[in-house]
Amino acid sequence: MQTYIDCYPCVLRQVIEAARMANASPSQARKIVQETLDILKSLPEGATPPAIGSQAHRTVREITGNQDPYAEVKREATEKALSMLPQLHKIIDSSQDHLETAIRLSIAGNIMDFGPNPDYDLWEVIEAVLHQDFAVNDLPKLYEYLGRSQSILFLGDNAGEHVFDKVLIEQLTLPVTYVVRGGPVLNDVTMADAVAIGLDQTAEVMDNGARVPGTIVSMCNPKFQERFRTADLILAKGMGNYETLSEVQAPIFFLLQVKCPIIGADIGVPVGSTVIKKGLDT
Amino acid sequence: MQTYIDCYPCVLRQVIEAARMANASPSQARKIVQETLDILKSLPEGATPPAIGSQAHRTVREITGNQDPYAEVKREATEKALSMLPQLHKIIDSSQDHLETAIRLSIAGNIMDFGPNPDYDLWEVIEAVLHQDFAVNDLPKLYEYLGRSQSILFLGDNAGEHVFDKVLIEQLTLPVTYVVRGGPVLNDVTMADAVAIGLDQTAEVMDNGARVPGTIVSMCNPKFQERFRTADLILAKGMGNYETLSEVQAPIFFLLQVKCPIIGADIGVPVGSTVIKKGLDT
Repeated sequence: MQTYIDCYPCVLRQVIEAARMANASPSQARKIVQETLDILKSLPEGATPPAIGSQAHRTVREITGNQDPYAEVKREATEKALSMLPQLHKIIDSSQDHLETAIRLSIAGNIMDFGPNPDYDLWEVIEAVLHQDFAVNDLPKLYEYLGRSQSILFLGDNAGEHVFDKVLIEQLTLPVTYVVRGGPVLNDVTMADAVAIGLDQTAEVMDNGARVPGTIVSMCNPKFQERFRTADLILAKGMGNYETLSEVQAPIFFLLQVKCPIIGADIGVPVGSTVIKKGLDT
Repeated sequence: MQTYIDCYPCVLRQVIEAARMANASPSQARKIVQETLDILKSLPEGATPPAIGSQAHRTVREITGNQDPYAEVKREATEKALSMLPQLHKIIDSSQDHLETAIRLSIAGNIMDFGPNPDYDLWEVIEAVLHQDFAVNDLPKLYEYLGRSQSILFLGDNAGEHVFDKVLIEQLTLPVTYVVRGGPVLNDVTMADAVAIGLDQTAEVMDNGARVPGTIVSMCNPKFQERFRTADLILAKGMGNYETLSEVQAPIFFLLQVKCPIIGADIGVPVGSTVIKKGLDT
């Protein structure tokens, strides 16, 4: 997805938030904002929002020296998600279609963004996602792909959300490789976050080598690039993966909650929508 | 009030909104955003948010050729406010303290920002402002000033809101000079807007000569500067006037709704607060 001008204020807002999370001093924060204005001024043609985010969050790390400003937020989100596990399993066990319910729960987990929500919010989202219609529903096509694929490349998104992904992976019969970011960036899931919840016991976990809040294939390590090129089914969670992969031809399905009006407009659905969307045909 | 870094994304968002209201083409909109990034990059020390807004909205006018992007929004807000007049008068007539009620209504009208709200919202705000405590309450001091002043310099804010100001002015026994902006900028009230509702029948109306969504005295015309310098009581409506005059020594009272967390933090009250605040002592 291209960067729309409406993304500019949002990038700036996010960077200020990150500077605050990194305990930037007022002068550091001003410097971070100045450098972000420079980044926005000189965007290369076709830069996606996560590409900008990647640069901007590197600036935050470089200026503050804080390598993981969202560490605490990620820890809290993960703890909250772990505390919900027994209930999530109960919901699946008592459902008619375990796989669809697990897919819905994984998408519901995508709401775990920008820090923890109060309990009732998260449960409200889960209730809604369990019962609402998909605004884009390529689930039948996803089932087709599941039936004819040998394995799944699963692109993770946020920490906390990855607990919900683990619940889904447990319901999948195909072997899964779970891909995490190459290092801390925003609240995105990393190898340490995955190992901390035992995701490496449920799936192969690999990092893509890039510190980008999305998946820019050309910036990833050769191992990931090879896996991506040869995958027969890719599940991509969240908005960052959508923004960076929506125009890439691959056997990919985007599973996300639409939390931003710009991405909503790009997909053609309102904010709050639950989406399972097949990517560009290969 | 100084410009906080949190104001940057907000300025950018506002300018994109203004570009859209001015029917900017995609390339014009990109140019407007680029120029706004330049403005933000090279802010002079101590520039207030309305000073930036003034520059940014001039850019919108220059690039699109649209001299008044908010004309329609202002017209609709004014019509809505006029349609409420009979009820506003009824509220005052049936109140115990006509003046305080009129002051509260004038502050409630300050919610008429960024276009019209659905009816029930506005009435909800009016209900709340009529009954809630002031988060900062310099009303007793304002009454003192009203008792010892010869006249009032009344600094208007938004179109639509000015209808509520007229209702207040009708309750004031002192002669009032109502000050409007020097030309259309954002949805701020201008001479044409004031004359359209007959404000010139209730008060002397003058424009301050500056196309700024606030009051930067040094940018105003000599006539206004003289009036400002010699005033014994100034009422200043809304956030833009607060942002530009909060550090100016003058016999000024700010009447506003706090609609922005940054201004709230500056005053020390939460968003949604109703404020009557005495300015810096002379």
